[in-house]
Amino acid sequence: MHAISLYMDDKKDYKYLKEIDYPADLRKLKVDELPQVCEELRRDIIEELAVNPGHFASSLGVVELTVALHYVFNTPYDRLVWDVGHQAYGHKILTGRRDRFCTNRKFNGIRPFPHPDESEYDTFCCGHASNSISAALGMAVAAKQKGEKRRVVAVIGDGALSGGLAFEGINNAAGTPNDMLIVLNDNKMSIDNSVGGMRQYLLQLTTNSTYNDLRYKISQKLSEWGVLNEKRRKGIIRFNNSVKSVLTRQQNIFEGMDIRYFGPTDGHDVKELVRILMAIKEMKGPKILHIHTKKGHGYAPAEEDATIWHAPGKFDPDTGERIVADDGKPHPPKFQDVFGETLLELAQQNPKIVGVTPAMPTGCSMNVMMNAMPSRVFDVGIAEGHAVTFSGGMAKDGLMPFCNIYSSFMQRAYDNIIHDAATMHLNMVLCLDRAGLVGEDGSTHHGAFDLAFLRPIPNLTIASPLNEPELRNMMYTAQLPEKGTFVIRYPRGCGNTVDWKCDFEELPVGKGRKLKEGQDIAVLSLGPLGLEAQKAIAIAELESLHTRPEAPLSIAHYDMRFLKPIDEDLLHEVGRNFKKVVTVEDGSVAGGLGSAVLEFFAEHGYQIEVKRIGIPDEFVTHGTIAELRRACRMDAKSIAEILS
Amino acid sequence: MHAISLYMDDKKDYKYLKEIDYPADLRKLKVDELPQVCEELRRDIIEELAVNPGHFASSLGVVELTVALHYVFNTPYDRLVWDVGHQAYGHKILTGRRDRFCTNRKFNGIRPFPHPDESEYDTFCCGHASNSISAALGMAVAAKQKGEKRRVVAVIGDGALSGGLAFEGINNAAGTPNDMLIVLNDNKMSIDNSVGGMRQYLLQLTTNSTYNDLRYKISQKLSEWGVLNEKRRKGIIRFNNSVKSVLTRQQNIFEGMDIRYFGPTDGHDVKELVRILMAIKEMKGPKILHIHTKKGHGYAPAEEDATIWHAPGKFDPDTGERIVADDGKPHPPKFQDVFGETLLELAQQNPKIVGVTPAMPTGCSMNVMMNAMPSRVFDVGIAEGHAVTFSGGMAKDGLMPFCNIYSSFMQRAYDNIIHDAATMHLNMVLCLDRAGLVGEDGSTHHGAFDLAFLRPIPNLTIASPLNEPELRNMMYTAQLPEKGTFVIRYPRGCGNTVDWKCDFEELPVGKGRKLKEGQDIAVLSLGPLGLEAQKAIAIAELESLHTRPEAPLSIAHYDMRFLKPIDEDLLHEVGRNFKKVVTVEDGSVAGGLGSAVLEFFAEHGYQIEVKRIGIPDEFVTHGTIAELRRACRMDAKSIAEILS
Repeated sequence: MHAISLYMDDKKDYKYLKEIDYPADLRKLKVDELPQVCEELRRDIIEELAVNPGHFASSLGVVELTVALHYVFNTPYDRLVWDVGHQAYGHKILTGRRDRFCTNRKFNGIRPFPHPDESEYDTFCCGHASNSISAALGMAVAAKQKGEKRRVVAVIGDGALSGGLAFEGINNAAGTPNDMLIVLNDNKMSIDNSVGGMRQYLLQLTTNSTYNDLRYKISQKLSEWGVLNEKRRKGIIRFNNSVKSVLTRQQNIFEGMDIRYFGPTDGHDVKELVRILMAIKEMKGPKILHIHTKKGHGYAPAEEDATIWHAPGKFDPDTGERIVADDGKPHPPKFQDVFGETLLELAQQNPKIVGVTPAMPTGCSMNVMMNAMPSRVFDVGIAEGHAVTFSGGMAKDGLMPFCNIYSSFMQRAYDNIIHDAATMHLNMVLCLDRAGLVGEDGSTHHGAFDLAFLRPIPNLTIASPLNEPELRNMMYTAQLPEKGTFVIRYPRGCGNTVDWKCDFEELPVGKGRKLKEGQDIAVLSLGPLGLEAQKAIAIAELESLHTRPEAPLSIAHYDMRFLKPIDEDLLHEVGRNFKKVVTVEDGSVAGGLGSAVLEFFAEHGYQIEVKRIGIPDEFVTHGTIAELRRACRMDAKSIAEILS
Repeated sequence: MHAISLYMDDKKDYKYLKEIDYPADLRKLKVDELPQVCEELRRDIIEELAVNPGHFASSLGVVELTVALHYVFNTPYDRLVWDVGHQAYGHKILTGRRDRFCTNRKFNGIRPFPHPDESEYDTFCCGHASNSISAALGMAVAAKQKGEKRRVVAVIGDGALSGGLAFEGINNAAGTPNDMLIVLNDNKMSIDNSVGGMRQYLLQLTTNSTYNDLRYKISQKLSEWGVLNEKRRKGIIRFNNSVKSVLTRQQNIFEGMDIRYFGPTDGHDVKELVRILMAIKEMKGPKILHIHTKKGHGYAPAEEDATIWHAPGKFDPDTGERIVADDGKPHPPKFQDVFGETLLELAQQNPKIVGVTPAMPTGCSMNVMMNAMPSRVFDVGIAEGHAVTFSGGMAKDGLMPFCNIYSSFMQRAYDNIIHDAATMHLNMVLCLDRAGLVGEDGSTHHGAFDLAFLRPIPNLTIASPLNEPELRNMMYTAQLPEKGTFVIRYPRGCGNTVDWKCDFEELPVGKGRKLKEGQDIAVLSLGPLGLEAQKAIAIAELESLHTRPEAPLSIAHYDMRFLKPIDEDLLHEVGRNFKKVVTVEDGSVAGGLGSAVLEFFAEHGYQIEVKRIGIPDEFVTHGTIAELRRACRMDAKSIAEILS
């Protein structure tokens, strides 16, 4: 219907879009003009994303919904709460950021995910999934308490609906007086395909669309004829439910919880969406509108493989060819691929190994094992807490789970790590991908806090590899018998080892190693940021040959490998031999490796000058990892300055 | 039916119970004997709890279920996973701990909540609600992977079902091959009454019991006649669902998710429970048995007020009179009551204030405000994550939420604090009751980690009052305009101030105060453990008059008040004037106040001997707070030794 030709010869020649700076401008148009707005908006997103990579398929899927919502609702007075900001590119373009959209996700550019600090149209932080209903309910209750007539809309995907927080929100919305509208954007996907009972459930709802269409049309007619006021409508809905029970096998959880359910309807028919939203927007009480959309809608390559096109990188908008930089040289692999390949290797050797991922098989490369051993990998949906507790249950009965969760999402499973793993010293492995600064995804996605929040947990082992072969060996070590709850954290991106497929070797738990001798300063690093420290040491030593040739700097480098248990022998050696120590970690300076080292020195009476390098006490912005490291003074050059 | 006379003249004369050391003994009995076992078990619980306080009403409610489960299932080979160990007293008595049950919750006695370290019958840690389905699913999957024929049963209350984790578990159970049985113990309560859509939903299910009874009986008969094998049963269930849709308005979420639903049935009819469990235990696929029980069943006073009798303290088992120690003297109030009373006072002055509690209005005394201003307090059910995000939504639109969550349960809202509050520097107050050592509830309930896990979060203010008036003033300060996300943590129990209702006074944020001058050592304390430090200082100074009269100790005491922002002026003063510092906090020594002080001194080049006193790096056991403080060397005497 709104399919875009892959060949577009009149780029940027937008009749409507160029006149729309804010939703107020959109609302001046006639409904019949909206399909054209959608087409231009979709084209704008495609063309921008082709040259400035970002999240792609999600935003294409909600173009019509975005236009319809801003058309029908009086934003920003009415509150529009997006669940996961992936999908909000159209929203940004329509809300004062069209000109700046080319800076999306760039250092000093607009944010990767909507945030109230950027625009009054961005009502809530939406980097992590499943929070929209809870937040919107809060806003709806606030409106009621303050006697304000504003309307509140949450837009949540079926993927995000598997998160426990979304259920907690729905459960509470059902029991708390409010007039919120929840739009359930059902595309049967999160980044990978959606899974679980709720997906099955939504599928069943779909099969009854004929009935629902009928019901909707009847209520529309009654409304037009003026015979349907609020009170009557409620009665009719009750009656409808009874009829529905007779007509269908459908069991509607939402109406069972006294939340009115409308749909499912075609989420790519903007005029129909406007009609429905107009009809239900003044209804009292909580309500759900269930729409069907297709991730990547309107761009054929993305429609065909929405997982790859979730965030495709640069591409040619005309041909749909993804542009992969390739200089022909061999490169070190991504850490996530080392994880994925190694997990499969280990699983082939150890039949107890199973994999668990909360909706991230592609993101963490567990799809490698999933493809080879589908019965031993569990994609549990967006449900980080469950992923850890479920792993705990398997570990309790003798399996060896590798549960992989991005560091910043592991914040959602904090109690589960404590209560459902560490208290029982269960033998299981928690792999934290995307630990440390992640780059363009920005403040909500940096894995800044894990070292600090995990360190106080008793019984845990916390490790971070310097490079790819170490990650392999840590994974190998972690799955050996009786290693307890074993955390391995590693960053986004690559290390330094092209030839990474080493033979497995058991690493001594709680032991670091000396990478380089030195006399004046000891650098203690944890994880791949140690490679940056290595460069820094080389720079600082080299420079000192010029600046103080009479006594050039001599810097020792220790790779701690383990934050917990920390290597006490190593620290005693350092304590006895150095007066100056610099700690380097890709995590919050408050509470992590630096703190652990200070605590150790204090406990054992070493009086040593300690400088800590790590992520500062602020929500770090977005940009390339190199830009952010520089801003945080964690790059080789900045570290070298501190060493000098 | 099994009502117990309040007057019992043949105490401990148990015909059956004395012969049951383990479930294997129970399984030797005839079904007809089980009601008598239940009666004796109930009486044993009542008499033990009368003299040795603990959780009462929950365990009485599941006496019949406990007996039926251990009778029908081959525990411990079959796995029985309790959700919240409150209810597991009967389970303990039947599984080898009858003789030791008098030591329940006592220092060196058996644990307050089941734990695998204590008994092979305790399959999983169950101090925090809502984890049973996830853990049991893990065990069910492990059994399948390993080709073991064991059965797995999770027992979850309707209260715990509001937790997002339970939903995540159900959602995944629906999509993962397993034969787990979930027993839904529906008593319409958590500690207070259950709330939310799911409660409403379960209520509706109930109204169709006639139909369900019918359906169950038909399937029973067919089974007895041998015409109902697994395959046929599945067909019949599908058919039944269709019939049900015609007959009733009921919409069953569980069956909608392809989890078979049985019930509701009377959870106090042990013979009927055995019959049903026998019938369904070999069925393939996930299934739910919905039973109705009454919290406190069989003990009239507890049936009448299950909230008070959740954990009633000592009582006279014959009269039901609760024994409250009263020496006639005025006592300082509990911190929770200061919170509750003060919240109401502030809410009367500030119309923006609202209260949010996840199923703990009585436990945190928010019921004071709830009774006075029901429309301004929101009990959101057991749903800590939602409680914080919902508060965030309200804060975003101009209300001033006070969200009160026990410290150890706040571990479940960690990401919500970061992502849905701190990133947006929202003006809201998070009150962490039960922070620090909590006593008899033991390892899962100590609020040990909050200082360490909150400190790295940017934008947060983290405060802890020395005593009751300070708690009032911190609450007053936190609700003043533009104070951002403000955490106040305080412990279980009382402070030191009988006359606590001071006038409100704004406290300078990030400023501590000097409580006592001194020259030799500076004690830096945070929170009410500072009162213990005060005593310690007095002891140490007094003793030094005898041991070193030529130069008696002179110890300064600073009450930090704020962990974040930390008082840098105060720390500079200390850094300049002292060579020895002792930090005192009721939280993990790793990462909390002690670490913050070390970090500050390291940053500013102070070379000072710092000793840190706090909760050690282990899961601390249960006992009185005094016993545990002694064990952790956090009591006045131990602190004095460190000072001397």
